Amino acid sequence: MPKISLKGQSMPQSPIRKLVPYAENAHKQGKTVYYLNIGQPDIKTPQIALDAVKIHSLDILAYTRSEGSEEYRKKIAGYYYKKQIHVTHDDIIVTTGGSEALLFAFGSIMDTDDEIIVPEPFYANYNGFSTASNVNIVPVISKIEDNFALPPIEEFEKLITPKTKAILICNPGNPTGYLYSKEEIKQLASLVKKHDLFLIADEVYREFAYDGHSHYSIMQEQGIEDNAIMIDSVSKRYSMCGARIGYLVSKNKAVIQTALKFAQARLSPPTFAQIASEAALETPQSYFDDVIHEYVDRRNILIEELQKIAGIKVAKPNGAFYCVVQLPIKNADNFAQWLLEHFDVNGETVMVAPAAGFYSTPGVGLNQIRIAYVLKKESLIKAVNIIKEALKVYKD
Amino acid sequence: MPKISLKGQSMPQSPIRKLVPYAENAHKQGKTVYYLNIGQPDIKTPQIALDAVKIHSLDILAYTRSEGSEEYRKKIAGYYYKKQIHVTHDDIIVTTGGSEALLFAFGSIMDTDDEIIVPEPFYANYNGFSTASNVNIVPVISKIEDNFALPPIEEFEKLITPKTKAILICNPGNPTGYLYSKEEIKQLASLVKKHDLFLIADEVYREFAYDGHSHYSIMQEQGIEDNAIMIDSVSKRYSMCGARIGYLVSKNKAVIQTALKFAQARLSPPTFAQIASEAALETPQSYFDDVIHEYVDRRNILIEELQKIAGIKVAKPNGAFYCVVQLPIKNADNFAQWLLEHFDVNGETVMVAPAAGFYSTPGVGLNQIRIAYVLKKESLIKAVNIIKEALKVYKD
Repeated sequence: MPKISLKGQSMPQSPIRKLVPYAENAHKQGKTVYYLNIGQPDIKTPQIALDAVKIHSLDILAYTRSEGSEEYRKKIAGYYYKKQIHVTHDDIIVTTGGSEALLFAFGSIMDTDDEIIVPEPFYANYNGFSTASNVNIVPVISKIEDNFALPPIEEFEKLITPKTKAILICNPGNPTGYLYSKEEIKQLASLVKKHDLFLIADEVYREFAYDGHSHYSIMQEQGIEDNAIMIDSVSKRYSMCGARIGYLVSKNKAVIQTALKFAQARLSPPTFAQIASEAALETPQSYFDDVIHEYVDRRNILIEELQKIAGIKVAKPNGAFYCVVQLPIKNADNFAQWLLEHFDVNGETVMVAPAAGFYSTPGVGLNQIRIAYVLKKESLIKAVNIIKEALKVYKD
Repeated sequence: MPKISLKGQSMPQSPIRKLVPYAENAHKQGKTVYYLNIGQPDIKTPQIALDAVKIHSLDILAYTRSEGSEEYRKKIAGYYYKKQIHVTHDDIIVTTGGSEALLFAFGSIMDTDDEIIVPEPFYANYNGFSTASNVNIVPVISKIEDNFALPPIEEFEKLITPKTKAILICNPGNPTGYLYSKEEIKQLASLVKKHDLFLIADEVYREFAYDGHSHYSIMQEQGIEDNAIMIDSVSKRYSMCGARIGYLVSKNKAVIQTALKFAQARLSPPTFAQIASEAALETPQSYFDDVIHEYVDRRNILIEELQKIAGIKVAKPNGAFYCVVQLPIKNADNFAQWLLEHFDVNGETVMVAPAAGFYSTPGVGLNQIRIAYVLKKESLIKAVNIIKEALKVYKD
């Protein structure tokens, strides 16, 4: 029998999805499961986006331009302008989700065995994209005690080798919920300039900044125009994860020209999704105000409830809709599976994402979980209570 | 300034798109351009597919399963059953276009510097996908004199090295229009079994088989269940190139499990496109009958008109909607550009794809072009006449 590649063998399985069979079994046993494991919000997609495809008048569902239509990209530039990010449509390539934007960025700037430094814990699929691209993630540990703030810049600098091509951050962070300050971005900017590296920022949660903090984009930072590559997506912003539309944004012309060759090879991003996403740009501010209000409420109640549990540690997030929680146990993988297989409170249990999969360093984060607060408050209260009761009886 | 990767530098530009700026200039000069360069059919998408998204009742445009819903995959298996291809939904992964299916296949079975043997001329983007995947295409020349039939199987065997992991065919072929016979498929099947290789068949033009020939899929061939990987797409079948839905199909469980990890990393294929594509499976046979009839008419008139031109050679296609034409010139790149820049008949000119980009061997196919017969007969007649008149005055 012909063999699978080493790359294929080493592709990591998503830590978010590996417990799915146990959740399915819990369902079969008649249990209710609260899903705190995946960033699929329960927030409605803006009606204007859903309606746009309902009233389409296409009679041929044709390819679009590989980089997205000029009209759409001009509107995207208009959206950025309102966020104090000054780019033109020529600086933007429309991609099939932020995932594809990351793959294009990796392919454009890294060759086999090149290295990219990433503060961990990080979005687990960065592992998959780096394996798929034959490059290596070099992690810098950020700590729950520091709320997952940027590690000291010397920690990054120590790891730079001739193979280092970029630093990748997620801001605000999945899974940490940490929003980087302007000062932290400036430290990264100095470092990438000094060492001639790219700085990739996954800013798909830009809109989700809480407590009066404002998001500071790498694209706002002067002097790193040739270093900065921004990854963006409509998925979370408009609760339209299923559209699969993202953007790669850079003022570095060579990056855009190169990414465009990857984009042309795959022909075009999905047409209906672009129609919906272009319409979504007209979403009124009141939609975001309501959503942010809802998430802040959820976060507050979640943190409040979690802090009532003895022996746990939680980093209070000020962005995105995730938080990492350290539990008084040894192995969160086993605990998460046990919750689905062997525990319930009145027939209800909870599915969480073990955090080890968000780390690259082996053995780190084993006692941590990621909670996505994508459910209503009442559900979050019940879900935290289930974790609390579970910890009373669970034995590692 | 940080540097672009070697991979990014060596990503080929699509031969179909590189003349676009010249076509845009021709437009600005007021010329009409007949586009024979790209496989974007003018055929209408089945109404049932277009309507399906108009009547959607989603209020959250959510992720789907990474491999596509079980219901949709069961319907796809039902479609294959009607084509004498017996697979189950577990053998199918829904992808973002055939492009992504190819990338998943390449990643699942090949590591850096591995080799894949491909008869040339081949679909130009195979070059891009192989560069993106860090693998090497090893070409076997098929000849216009043989109508681009499968080269002698010894020619493949001679090229097999320890790094060879697969043979890739496109059936019927883009750009050749050649439909492989059952006998040719059997020869390939023996060879991949003998050498423990994968056989990847891009069968996106399956429906487009003419003159009473029937398409024989690698999935119909007994005994190569572990070797065969089929690439498919809704793009051409239902004239919905902009959907970006394809499938990777294999009975090799390890291939499916591995490709699924790549699929999970990018989360899911586009949701609206899956709604449209699932509905498209209900397209009545009369739609295909009409489309095939139209393409056969177009092909016939195209070949008839081309054969009136002195000094040209054309391979009569019996599948897909492309043909390769050899012209009495030295360099088709220059000719194609000159057509757009300096030639017209009554203000009309034509855009063709120079065929060199469909070959991997340098210097081969320089005097060939690919014509996509995706326009109405009257336009094809005018377009061929423009080429005929052009050849009378063109000097290399």
